[in-house]
Amino acid sequence: MEKERPPYVPEPAIRRLPWYLACVSRLRAQGVEYVSSTAISRQLNVDASQIAKDLSYLNIKGKTRIGYEVEQLERELDDFLGFTRCHKAVMIGVGSLGRALISDSGLSRYGLNIVAGFDTSPDIVGTEVAGVPVYDMSRLAELRPGLDAEIAVIAVPVEFAAEVTGQCVAAGIKALWNFTPFHIKTSPGITIQNTSLYANLALMYNRMNSR
Amino acid sequence: MEKERPPYVPEPAIRRLPWYLACVSRLRAQGVEYVSSTAISRQLNVDASQIAKDLSYLNIKGKTRIGYEVEQLERELDDFLGFTRCHKAVMIGVGSLGRALISDSGLSRYGLNIVAGFDTSPDIVGTEVAGVPVYDMSRLAELRPGLDAEIAVIAVPVEFAAEVTGQCVAAGIKALWNFTPFHIKTSPGITIQNTSLYANLALMYNRMNSR
Repeated sequence: MEKERPPYVPEPAIRRLPWYLACVSRLRAQGVEYVSSTAISRQLNVDASQIAKDLSYLNIKGKTRIGYEVEQLERELDDFLGFTRCHKAVMIGVGSLGRALISDSGLSRYGLNIVAGFDTSPDIVGTEVAGVPVYDMSRLAELRPGLDAEIAVIAVPVEFAAEVTGQCVAAGIKALWNFTPFHIKTSPGITIQNTSLYANLALMYNRMNSR
Repeated sequence: MEKERPPYVPEPAIRRLPWYLACVSRLRAQGVEYVSSTAISRQLNVDASQIAKDLSYLNIKGKTRIGYEVEQLERELDDFLGFTRCHKAVMIGVGSLGRALISDSGLSRYGLNIVAGFDTSPDIVGTEVAGVPVYDMSRLAELRPGLDAEIAVIAVPVEFAAEVTGQCVAAGIKALWNFTPFHIKTSPGITIQNTSLYANLALMYNRMNSR
């Protein structure tokens, strides 16, 4: 983990940066050398002034009448977002979703390297998923330092979410990527990122019915 | 798809409802019959008054000194969130993430039934993933009505996101659950739900580095 502090960027801007990255990666693949915030704006439906402002947080400035250099912009966004560094993680809960996430090679493209899984089921412990070994949950505190993982991806059934969170923190985990619908309380020094697939589904269903 | 309009509930409240559902499901499994908003509040770190307000949108009211009836609250939340209905969906892009999502049986618990996959790769078209057939992308418009699917889950490489979105809308898809970092423009009558795993990763990395 790098100790250098990144520039302060507000959360809504951080959420938009991957859109810009996706856009410039596509342009780079097409051989485009320069792009204006206006051109990015047309593709993404985000105001050009907002794009320029978001990028200025990273001290990225376009040139008058030329715009941004595509390759450089892609590299700077990739670096800032942390996708070019390797962040080691453990998967807590190797059921259906846990296996799915371990098998998604896309995560390693974005800097997340899942090095081990932990579960309590005798059918799963001792097996491998896509080359990743699965250990008994009781061994997390013992094995974590050697695995050098500071991130835990939580994909257990919701009724175990509170319990495994405590075990992760006790084992020295610094960040929890929570896929359960359980709302984990924050603790000092622990980063919590909630990605509730099911809450997103509920929102989508609700909007479909409201039309 | 049900035509009955659900009560209007603001988006931040909809995002919290799955937390309450997870909490009461757990209580029900433990045999608890009644729960107060204060007790839910302690578990979730959300103000009790906020919980009571959120539930009142659904016309759910607790009884003085007794609280909410756990089984009834679970059922009403499950129903409102759309998790008890079957929403048929197609998976667009059956690569690493697409296969992973098809294999996640958790989605069907939350009302999403993936009935077919679509891809362009000759290695994948004609195969089955977890019992779900994969067709050539060019057949989407022809096959969609028979599949009775109004939702498309978008899990293609980001450079194809714009193109497949157009194909989905042309084929009669009404809602897009977008897992790519591409920011899909909204069209009238089309619901778009973005779930950017990678944007969430970027946020988590950023917060870890800021500590």
